[in-house]
Amino acid sequence: MTDRLTLYDTTLRDGQQTQGVQFSAAEKREIAILLDTLGLDYIEGGWPGANPTDSEFFDAPPATSARLTAFGMTKRTGRSAENDDTLAAVMNAGTGAVCIVGKTHPFHVETALGVTLDENLENISKSIAYIVAQGREALFDAEHFFDGYEAAPAYATACVMAALEAGARWIVLCDTNGGTMPTRIGAIIRAVIAAGIPGERLGIHTHNDTEQAVAGSLAAIDAGARQVQGTLNGLGERCGNANLTTLIPTLLLKEPYASQYLTGIDRDRLPSLLQVSRRLDDILNRVPRREAAYVGASAFTHKAGLHASAIAKDPTTYEHIPPETVGNTRLVPMSNQAGLSNLRTRLADAGLKGTDDQLRRILSRVKSREDEGYSYDVAPASFELIARSELGLLPDMFEVERYRVSVERRRDARGAAVTLSEAVVVVQVDGEKRLSVSESLDEVGADRGPVNALSKALAKDLGSLQDRIADMRLTDFRVRITQGGTEAVTRVLIDHEDDAGQHWTTVGVSPNIVDASFEALIDAVRWKLLH
Amino acid sequence: MTDRLTLYDTTLRDGQQTQGVQFSAAEKREIAILLDTLGLDYIEGGWPGANPTDSEFFDAPPATSARLTAFGMTKRTGRSAENDDTLAAVMNAGTGAVCIVGKTHPFHVETALGVTLDENLENISKSIAYIVAQGREALFDAEHFFDGYEAAPAYATACVMAALEAGARWIVLCDTNGGTMPTRIGAIIRAVIAAGIPGERLGIHTHNDTEQAVAGSLAAIDAGARQVQGTLNGLGERCGNANLTTLIPTLLLKEPYASQYLTGIDRDRLPSLLQVSRRLDDILNRVPRREAAYVGASAFTHKAGLHASAIAKDPTTYEHIPPETVGNTRLVPMSNQAGLSNLRTRLADAGLKGTDDQLRRILSRVKSREDEGYSYDVAPASFELIARSELGLLPDMFEVERYRVSVERRRDARGAAVTLSEAVVVVQVDGEKRLSVSESLDEVGADRGPVNALSKALAKDLGSLQDRIADMRLTDFRVRITQGGTEAVTRVLIDHEDDAGQHWTTVGVSPNIVDASFEALIDAVRWKLLH
Repeated sequence: MTDRLTLYDTTLRDGQQTQGVQFSAAEKREIAILLDTLGLDYIEGGWPGANPTDSEFFDAPPATSARLTAFGMTKRTGRSAENDDTLAAVMNAGTGAVCIVGKTHPFHVETALGVTLDENLENISKSIAYIVAQGREALFDAEHFFDGYEAAPAYATACVMAALEAGARWIVLCDTNGGTMPTRIGAIIRAVIAAGIPGERLGIHTHNDTEQAVAGSLAAIDAGARQVQGTLNGLGERCGNANLTTLIPTLLLKEPYASQYLTGIDRDRLPSLLQVSRRLDDILNRVPRREAAYVGASAFTHKAGLHASAIAKDPTTYEHIPPETVGNTRLVPMSNQAGLSNLRTRLADAGLKGTDDQLRRILSRVKSREDEGYSYDVAPASFELIARSELGLLPDMFEVERYRVSVERRRDARGAAVTLSEAVVVVQVDGEKRLSVSESLDEVGADRGPVNALSKALAKDLGSLQDRIADMRLTDFRVRITQGGTEAVTRVLIDHEDDAGQHWTTVGVSPNIVDASFEALIDAVRWKLLH
Repeated sequence: MTDRLTLYDTTLRDGQQTQGVQFSAAEKREIAILLDTLGLDYIEGGWPGANPTDSEFFDAPPATSARLTAFGMTKRTGRSAENDDTLAAVMNAGTGAVCIVGKTHPFHVETALGVTLDENLENISKSIAYIVAQGREALFDAEHFFDGYEAAPAYATACVMAALEAGARWIVLCDTNGGTMPTRIGAIIRAVIAAGIPGERLGIHTHNDTEQAVAGSLAAIDAGARQVQGTLNGLGERCGNANLTTLIPTLLLKEPYASQYLTGIDRDRLPSLLQVSRRLDDILNRVPRREAAYVGASAFTHKAGLHASAIAKDPTTYEHIPPETVGNTRLVPMSNQAGLSNLRTRLADAGLKGTDDQLRRILSRVKSREDEGYSYDVAPASFELIARSELGLLPDMFEVERYRVSVERRRDARGAAVTLSEAVVVVQVDGEKRLSVSESLDEVGADRGPVNALSKALAKDLGSLQDRIADMRLTDFRVRITQGGTEAVTRVLIDHEDDAGQHWTTVGVSPNIVDASFEALIDAVRWKLLH
């Protein structure tokens, strides 16, 4: 006795309305692939014609099993659907499904649109019919539906009925302003179903303005709706949309949902949820929320002493699900006894082991450096170097005597501003001093900045060691300010890879961004020389 | 027909179990005063005896109207309540109310405590009776109650009945592991009331492991519970506790709660909610969550073009409550997503206006620069400069001919690594060329890096303009890589303030981080010269 629930992602559209979020077309493509791999049913790509990035995305959309959907709005009053240029831009994206938003609340029809109630009904009906006539699947986003229903139930119902009768596959009831309580969402959906719109045609779209977007979505499912809309990490306008990163594991793992419903998400893919969530944060260069449900670094962290000791006997004492089902891990913070066994596991990962005394020294050094802003969770290569140094397993390889980096901006002969970065690095290796210098121009002659110049100069001449680092390449560089204010400390994370397919991440911290980068670069070279 | 709801704060106890949170006794006192001023009924101060800071806090507790409560656990098996040293430490704090946690789930009684079910019942009963006999108000935290009830309803009910019969004023039903759905919380509370525990004696304590702590608390109230426990900003073990910063305005402003219940919160104090939330973040040195319900900086930010134009007509179109009721403010940011009316509002904020043609040119420039990586929704000062330039309202003030920044790291006489950054800036101002040079050492002689040096050199000598920029100070600096890979583009956001209390944010973008910073610095100086 299982019903199919349809999952509809709007990260690329409503999620892009998050303050400070602006995806490039390439980032949109990458996120669409992530969503598709998870098993979402629909991916809303954006509003073609309304914004250049969205148009660019739809010009070369990724191939997905999920149904790629273009978003737009109902035609305007006074012109036909065929002659509405906004709607035309949406149709021209050529997606199999088209979702259009329309008004269902008399106040909004009259105040925001300034048209009559009948004109609005006609705009809904004609727009949906036009999409269907073009051989596309039509979805209707019923904006402000719950507020509209509270104010004028007959008119709100008439609007969604018009969409249904015109052939919409899905009627999505939106709590646009995010203020409706879950119990009211449930009651109103029951009333809409009683009025003749089957639950298999109803979707729910909630916002988190009272921190109840997830609960509102579940209340809608309980009441009979069979499509749920949301975004990864709960991105979205104002306080965000319903968080799919929370809804997906809840629907797959928690009762009554786990046994009553089927989704398109492959249960075997669920452990990739944490990675997907983190990758989105990476793209946005956001610090992942430690306290996020399921995927947060603290979600399975047991700080209270009583909890930690019970967890040691049986983890189910203080965990509602096993952390590994969503790709997460249990953490009993370093200060506790379990810190040592944690550390032992991490050392074993790097092929190392040590005495209890050595482990305690490593732990204390890691802890004090994390207080300074280092983050070893995300920089295992730098962690390994610290552990090796305490274990006496870090040979002297080379020594940097000094470096100098300069950035100069001036006008060229034609008066255009030109910037040039240059780095000099002086190392001691094999008992000899070696000077290297590098600019940071890329293939097209553009300057890539001081860290790029420093990285090139450092890897240019390490004497007899040079062969062993020749194939290392810097693949990513991330900067984070770890304390607010002018005197902030800068944390730099640098990723490298080599021809053998190794990937490693190192960390550096300093008030000076160049110094922090330098520290991470040195760690990267040392790690490579050890492997 | 209004019922009284009791609000119980556990920020100082469960909130302190947040990963990375450790309050000092002085901070605990300050937070207790904040909570008391808001009008909380109970403030749980901590576990005296379990942790030195908590003992110190109770040694000199603040004077509050709220009932200060000490937290502890039921007596151990095999000794009397009078002779249990852990319980004695809690009683010795001398608070009017004492809350003790006890087990109600057979699995936990047997696995975590290792005692018999009957012994556990006796521990609950004797501990509560002892507290009451000492003339204190007793509260019983029924740990894992909902999971316990699902597993063994008769035993879970017997535990809370034992506490009630021994004289507990409140029985607090805890969803300790945070995995219970709100509908189950409601159903189980109804069953407990039917079993003979009146709703006026029942409290609810939820956790946010499925993002439903607020919804679970409201479901408990709907079912008849009359005490709600939570924490400010949702602090707490793992994913946190029910967020009082969300629950308080929901209970006071949203139906059916606003008209059905009374709380101790003074409606006139509600606009201080945002400040209280921010102060706690300040104490913890946490960045406030932009997307937080009610109090987040984005909670009333309208980025979508359609939303912004409706907001200009009537703010209730896209706001579930007026932002000022919780001390928040409305924001219409400028961005790629924006339309003309959005732009018009934004220009009016800066005291500017333009023709439709000018607006379209501004919009197109903003959109194309956002495609390059700029982000004007978070950098209104840079936006204003673009708008002024299109409107012909940006006078020539000064011109930077060139700059040079260098970072040098070498060993000092004692062999320690020392870094020094230096910047030279050459400007044309008042028809004259001026050279300025600056290091970037702070008060303690530490180097703060190339951007700091550049900022100081740029603001050092602008000739006749110098007086007008003398009071500007750089307050924050944020770096984001907007495209992945080696050849990433760097976006720098810089915040400034001045003696007049103005705050402004500017943005710069370049593959070279120093160049991007330079661009943001120049914008900051120009903006300051205009104001």
